[in-house]
Amino acid sequence: MIHPRLATMLAIVTTDFPLAPAEVDSFLRPAVDATFNRISVDGECSTNDAVVLLANGASDTERDASRDEAFAHALRGVCADLARQIVEDGEGATVLLEIRVAGAASDDEAVAVARRIATSPLVKTAAFGRDPNWGRVLAAAGSAPWNGGFAQLDPDRLRVAFDGTAVFERGAPTGVAPVLSGPAMTIDLELGLGTGSAAYLASDLTYDYVRLNAEYTT
Amino acid sequence: MIHPRLATMLAIVTTDFPLAPAEVDSFLRPAVDATFNRISVDGECSTNDAVVLLANGASDTERDASRDEAFAHALRGVCADLARQIVEDGEGATVLLEIRVAGAASDDEAVAVARRIATSPLVKTAAFGRDPNWGRVLAAAGSAPWNGGFAQLDPDRLRVAFDGTAVFERGAPTGVAPVLSGPAMTIDLELGLGTGSAAYLASDLTYDYVRLNAEYTT
Repeated sequence: MIHPRLATMLAIVTTDFPLAPAEVDSFLRPAVDATFNRISVDGECSTNDAVVLLANGASDTERDASRDEAFAHALRGVCADLARQIVEDGEGATVLLEIRVAGAASDDEAVAVARRIATSPLVKTAAFGRDPNWGRVLAAAGSAPWNGGFAQLDPDRLRVAFDGTAVFERGAPTGVAPVLSGPAMTIDLELGLGTGSAAYLASDLTYDYVRLNAEYTT
Repeated sequence: MIHPRLATMLAIVTTDFPLAPAEVDSFLRPAVDATFNRISVDGECSTNDAVVLLANGASDTERDASRDEAFAHALRGVCADLARQIVEDGEGATVLLEIRVAGAASDDEAVAVARRIATSPLVKTAAFGRDPNWGRVLAAAGSAPWNGGFAQLDPDRLRVAFDGTAVFERGAPTGVAPVLSGPAMTIDLELGLGTGSAAYLASDLTYDYVRLNAEYTT
């Protein structure tokens, strides 16, 4: 049970960087959008979640554009680390999937495609089986809800790689089957249609996910 | 892998009722919308599916409004039976869930709520565990995408029943926990906001679903 517009989750980030209360949102929101809002364990939203940024200004740092940028970068790094831990700790997870979509018509469409892949039971069971299943990735991508219809795909421009090895290119499988092992796996999907991109973290769907959620009783 | 806008599925229905080619759509589409388009095994769409109605007119039946209605009713019954068999045969399924949503502001909103419940991994693992988990049903209902936001719920008007026994009423659990067993389970959700209603059939999420989809290799 963890998905953007998240599950029962409280994250508190503290800093001694000096921020006026009205500024916090402009630093925190983009960091959260790119991290906490790009993870999924099972696509289930829940009743409460919050990311809080507390800044006491104790460092007395002089503010300038470059320091602001450094702070924004560091804040995003902290949020990314916390978000990744949530997925790694997902119910029954055996592998951390990093799904990267590039070449979409827009970033928003890339997010929609990445989210659909990240929540696909077939992609997630294939990940549990360590199968570089490009068919399931493409089927999920093609069924991503977008603009009242579905995301745009051109088979001849698609490229799918698992852990950096292309398994599907220019409308056909490459015939290469990388050996997938270890606690992390990357899936790269290139759509070849534009410059939009997005990344998403997800866990796999396993026997233990079923056990943990079927044995629990109200 | 079965969901509205379906999976790899071909259904051929034949009849000797006399229909002009242009009429077939007006009989078949509402039947399919209420049956084949209201089932889900795991929310995964696939690449091809079709329901075909062939009518050779061999019966020479005289057409009138009442016979047309009888034919439409029979056609819907056949489609409902075929659709139900698909779900019962879903990968690893141990229980057929019938999800009925009533009291929505519109039929379309009721469909969105029913679909979200039907595709919720938490509802489907609870069903596998035979747990009358009203919390998961309501969490799924409240996260149903609708009109660019979420479906409308008023906790004080909600009622949830499993196999006809109310487990949640007027904002609170009833304290009754029906014993769920057997190959079918009904979940009734009353929203208390209008007259919209919809039904959906779904399978549960089980160890065998994971096994069948994780062991299969490209």
